[in-house]
Amino acid sequence: MPETVLEKTEGRVSYHDSVEEMLVRIRDDGLSSVFSRWDEQEKIRCKFCLQGLSCQLCTNGPCRLNGQKGPDKGVCGIGPDAMAMRNLLMRNIMGAATYAHHAYEAFRTLKETGMGNTVFQIKDVDKLKWMCEKTGIGTSQDVNQMAVHLADFLDREMKLGPDEESIMVEVFSPKKRKKIWEDLHIYPSGVEHEVQNSIASCLTNVDGDYVSLATKALRLGLSTIYTAQIGLEMTQDILFGTPMPHEVDVDLGIMDPDYVNIAFNGHQPWIGVAALQMAKKQEFQDLAKQAGAKGIHIVGSIETGQEMLQRFEVDDVFVGLMGNWLAIEPFLATGTVDAFVMEENCSPPAIDQYAEKYQVALVSVSTIIGVPGTEHKMPYYPRKAEEMAEKCIRIAIDNFKKRHKQIKPMVPRYKQKAIAGFSTEAVLGAIGNDLNNLVDVIAKGQIKGIVALANCSTLRNGPQDWNTVNLTKELIKKDILVVAGGCGNHGLEVAGMCNLDAIDQAGEGLQGVCRALGIPPVLSFGTCTDTGRISMLVTALADHLDADIADLPIAVTAPEWMEQKATIDGLFAVAYGAYTHLSPTPFITGAPELVKLFTEDVEGLTGGKVALGDDPVQVARDIEDHIMKKRKKMGLS
Amino acid sequence: MPETVLEKTEGRVSYHDSVEEMLVRIRDDGLSSVFSRWDEQEKIRCKFCLQGLSCQLCTNGPCRLNGQKGPDKGVCGIGPDAMAMRNLLMRNIMGAATYAHHAYEAFRTLKETGMGNTVFQIKDVDKLKWMCEKTGIGTSQDVNQMAVHLADFLDREMKLGPDEESIMVEVFSPKKRKKIWEDLHIYPSGVEHEVQNSIASCLTNVDGDYVSLATKALRLGLSTIYTAQIGLEMTQDILFGTPMPHEVDVDLGIMDPDYVNIAFNGHQPWIGVAALQMAKKQEFQDLAKQAGAKGIHIVGSIETGQEMLQRFEVDDVFVGLMGNWLAIEPFLATGTVDAFVMEENCSPPAIDQYAEKYQVALVSVSTIIGVPGTEHKMPYYPRKAEEMAEKCIRIAIDNFKKRHKQIKPMVPRYKQKAIAGFSTEAVLGAIGNDLNNLVDVIAKGQIKGIVALANCSTLRNGPQDWNTVNLTKELIKKDILVVAGGCGNHGLEVAGMCNLDAIDQAGEGLQGVCRALGIPPVLSFGTCTDTGRISMLVTALADHLDADIADLPIAVTAPEWMEQKATIDGLFAVAYGAYTHLSPTPFITGAPELVKLFTEDVEGLTGGKVALGDDPVQVARDIEDHIMKKRKKMGLS
Repeated sequence: MPETVLEKTEGRVSYHDSVEEMLVRIRDDGLSSVFSRWDEQEKIRCKFCLQGLSCQLCTNGPCRLNGQKGPDKGVCGIGPDAMAMRNLLMRNIMGAATYAHHAYEAFRTLKETGMGNTVFQIKDVDKLKWMCEKTGIGTSQDVNQMAVHLADFLDREMKLGPDEESIMVEVFSPKKRKKIWEDLHIYPSGVEHEVQNSIASCLTNVDGDYVSLATKALRLGLSTIYTAQIGLEMTQDILFGTPMPHEVDVDLGIMDPDYVNIAFNGHQPWIGVAALQMAKKQEFQDLAKQAGAKGIHIVGSIETGQEMLQRFEVDDVFVGLMGNWLAIEPFLATGTVDAFVMEENCSPPAIDQYAEKYQVALVSVSTIIGVPGTEHKMPYYPRKAEEMAEKCIRIAIDNFKKRHKQIKPMVPRYKQKAIAGFSTEAVLGAIGNDLNNLVDVIAKGQIKGIVALANCSTLRNGPQDWNTVNLTKELIKKDILVVAGGCGNHGLEVAGMCNLDAIDQAGEGLQGVCRALGIPPVLSFGTCTDTGRISMLVTALADHLDADIADLPIAVTAPEWMEQKATIDGLFAVAYGAYTHLSPTPFITGAPELVKLFTEDVEGLTGGKVALGDDPVQVARDIEDHIMKKRKKMGLS
Repeated sequence: MPETVLEKTEGRVSYHDSVEEMLVRIRDDGLSSVFSRWDEQEKIRCKFCLQGLSCQLCTNGPCRLNGQKGPDKGVCGIGPDAMAMRNLLMRNIMGAATYAHHAYEAFRTLKETGMGNTVFQIKDVDKLKWMCEKTGIGTSQDVNQMAVHLADFLDREMKLGPDEESIMVEVFSPKKRKKIWEDLHIYPSGVEHEVQNSIASCLTNVDGDYVSLATKALRLGLSTIYTAQIGLEMTQDILFGTPMPHEVDVDLGIMDPDYVNIAFNGHQPWIGVAALQMAKKQEFQDLAKQAGAKGIHIVGSIETGQEMLQRFEVDDVFVGLMGNWLAIEPFLATGTVDAFVMEENCSPPAIDQYAEKYQVALVSVSTIIGVPGTEHKMPYYPRKAEEMAEKCIRIAIDNFKKRHKQIKPMVPRYKQKAIAGFSTEAVLGAIGNDLNNLVDVIAKGQIKGIVALANCSTLRNGPQDWNTVNLTKELIKKDILVVAGGCGNHGLEVAGMCNLDAIDQAGEGLQGVCRALGIPPVLSFGTCTDTGRISMLVTALADHLDADIADLPIAVTAPEWMEQKATIDGLFAVAYGAYTHLSPTPFITGAPELVKLFTEDVEGLTGGKVALGDDPVQVARDIEDHIMKKRKKMGLS
């Protein structure tokens, strides 16, 4: 990082003042946090693991490779490139299967809703019809019937093998990409099949060829987005409404200790939405008041929070988003949270100490959650959503009685405005439903290009959100529009990059466009699960221009990726044909051929490639260079 | 190990003389092998990995735990027990998904066969009808129609979620177990759902509770056996015949360099069987003769070989089984193999050096395979089985022209007899189709108990197959009947434990039974995929006695487990209610609570437990103690 940025980071572990403040309390209270445990682990990191040259899969191992002065093959015979790629593919598989799990829950919820068995309604009938039209499902039937058919169809798509063709891939992939994918043998089947095929490939003594393994990772990436992620996002739109831009509140300052505060954390908004509907009823607000509270507040936590944020107004019940995953421990330490309701990552495993210290009831509403100290465990059944939501509210009210006035609250004063809720439909709406208007401003150079930012937040390459925010600042300065999803997006929202004031930080061209359209220079496109949604916008642009993705002045960045879903999003982006910046560097540096494949050779195949780099200024320059190259190729200056 | 056994191992790396001989050639020819690479890795093993206290899942890591003098939590906050269990569950998932992949290919093959699109026939109509009757599929329809329905049914079973009930679990699980599984929340859904649910649980910051993770592993084990493995075994019986005992040849001495030798390696016998059928035709034998060979020999390699061995006679075309996975490199070094055709593990990644040195054509017939140096790659489509088999034969004939007289053959003189082909039906047949006859000999103490041995082969606890063979010798000496599957079974066959001569090594009681029935003291029950098949025999016994599995004088052992399918078989056994010996010790020793859970506490829950130990004499004593305890409880002496 250049000196100016380095200076700013000195002594800090987070970009956000709210988090910094809370970490003082956490330290004073003698608790460990991701931040303090990071320092401890820094002392004993394994270099083999960092390079991808460690394998613990079988009793031949554990093996370590060290080509220079030790063995260059594992006991089974696997070499460094295949070992590192197999490790990476296993991470990709985890990401793919987790998205598929989310999709499974979404389709199951849609089906039960169509059958009239849930507390939810078909909220966006137009989108339901649109999806049915796209996928060949008759639209002359009853809306609920249609929902059931669509749910069955989407579920079946995830299960398709190579003997059948995926309609979702056919319908949603960019026109010019399909042949490329077929030629490279990465045209995908359903995600459940690809997951199974990939896992069986990773078994000891099955696939020991890094190119073969990398090919599977690319196919898995495509499969994940087209047969799981896009369907699940559209399903959530159908159930809860398509996101539309509106102003919201974010950061820890949204908390009010005098309310019963229920936070919904994870990625899957079913119970969060059900509880929000319920909390708006007088009877439940009254229940809270009887317990001595001013009422009930529903708080959005990380991605689940963003799913709600992008669809619902912030009001006297729904108070906004607390931040991203690294803010969870600081959030709990405010002493204001009555129930922390979890259904997916990130639900960190050591928050039991926070639950105890600050009197938080830990609640799980999915079978996948297993956080120590979770007192209340409910497996998710769509039919039981209402009952589950009510339980959450009652648990929180009970907790309030134990928490309020016993635990000293500490709420940082920071509350930030953001405009959340961009979607393909919203962007099209902003440009008068004519992509030519977007093409125009790109052609004129007012917008040089578009960067999709989707990722987590990590301490590996600096303080929380430092890389994400600084890279974004650099990009918009260069008239590059940023479209953001995931925990990185929440970081940008909290940092004030997603509101109209941020327009001042953009370059002149982008400023003009933003002011004309009344949009920020960073469009909050939701969660990491919205990677597919972002790609829909880019695909629309490519198809509109009759161009291939690889020819567009666009790029993808994951400047602070942390977990396994980010890795499969990254692989998707490379297969999709995008210049894909990843930081931190994945654990593959001990595998020279593999690094070359991803950073150089793959460009000749998919048109996409991986770009590395941890310095936001340099990364922004590299991205700009790439975008200018593509502009030139399109005949633009 | 006691002194007598240790003495014998000195200077040896394999129980088998054939392997020892070939390793001299391999060393002299300057090639590395699993055996030589083992020695290199022994110098740099990671102690954290060996204890299960290393994690590389995300960019918070790599983390290592060292409770005594370092951090006791990863950056995310995960503790040692959950970290080790999550690592283990990820291995279990790999095993489960690989079995599911095999099952997927089986059901797909059955369906296409029923539709008349493959080179296969419904060979065991009785078994097809029996399966249909058991699962509620009408049997008054055409046989092929029935096959299609069964295939669809079995495929659907793997995909069941918690909203539906599995018929396979209902029909095939022991009567007295079901309530136990329900009470423990381990009554399983379909394996594909359980795999997805388990993976999503293993994602960073989702399940950090070792008990929760262990519960998922047990459920996944049950799901694997009942919704994938048993169906796939029965499908293979339907397609290729139910195994029946017959004498076969094993060990490297089966090779004749003057023939075109095609080896089928892995676990999935589709192309092997198709090629065997084809090789028996005069026209293909003539083709080989035109190339200067005496004819074509089909060679069974590891599990695929065993699948064929247990169903087909050894004759002038099918020459038998070469051994288990650790014999693959020695096998290729004989300079007699023309085509090595692979579809699953173990297809070790460094055999390209052997292919080059000894002129072997490497062929893959499954998308999961990725062995470097594989020149011929064919994805498996059941419709193409005949075409693929013919390609394999032609590739081998071409290779013969390059191999014969150019490569000096070296064939160890060892060829062993074994009786392969035991199945539940075969055992029942041997005892006059009356389980009372088996109960009688157990009640009288002629057979004290039954041990199911299913596993791989590894160097971690001694030379190849040393633990497997020595433990088996100890067990049969104690009048304990051994029922064997997997690479361990091939080791026992090669070691001469599966023929009638081995009766002499059994205790007096077991000797009497074996002589009376004309069976060896070690029953070759096939492959690791036959774990489910073995359980069917035990389940039949339990249901016959109206007893629970945990009350029977039985045990399970995996004395040389190596890969991930073995770990899920082991977890199944514990959930099934069996005393389950595992060696080597799984990588969980740094997790004291987890070790206690598996070796002690779980017995109070499932009735099964994990027993550890690397000394075959002591392990046999422990198993005998367990069996005697159960006998006593049943009122037997």
